Amino acid sequence: MAKFMDVHHGMKGITAEQLRAAHQADLDIESDERVHFERAWADPESGTVYCLSEAPSAEAVQRIHERTGHKADEVHPVPLTV
Amino acid sequence: MAKFMDVHHGMKGITAEQLRAAHQADLDIESDERVHFERAWADPESGTVYCLSEAPSAEAVQRIHERTGHKADEVHPVPLTV
Repeated sequence: MAKFMDVHHGMKGITAEQLRAAHQADLDIESDERVHFERAWADPESGTVYCLSEAPSAEAVQRIHERTGHKADEVHPVPLTV
Repeated sequence: MAKFMDVHHGMKGITAEQLRAAHQADLDIESDERVHFERAWADPESGTVYCLSEAPSAEAVQRIHERTGHKADEVHPVPLTV
């Protein structure tokens, strides 16, 4: 398992409720891919969302996001953390 | 005070020790601007570093990063969190 940071662009105007609902949709099915989405942060003004997860691969992260209708624009492994 | 996510590109090959040292340099002076850098995540392969902070403004975050020699390429307020 490894940590991943994924980034979504084009989410301008996202609300707290929409972020919560999107995150919950991921949580509801994440175990199918042994992914866990830990946190998400959103900037409604630039339309950027960052999701931190633990997962077996970047592809597993992306498969969950695709199934819940919000494919990530970038998925980066982040093996280093402080 | 607000949350910010800042992003650094071009950090290919960054090591755990370099990330730790850069983060510590920020911590050492962050109080000058009432910033607190909470976490940082790095992808040495793409050369991307993400820093999560609490700060009075994006400019305050950037001033700390500039003084420690690693100006951020993007600083986003992230008012929404899950």
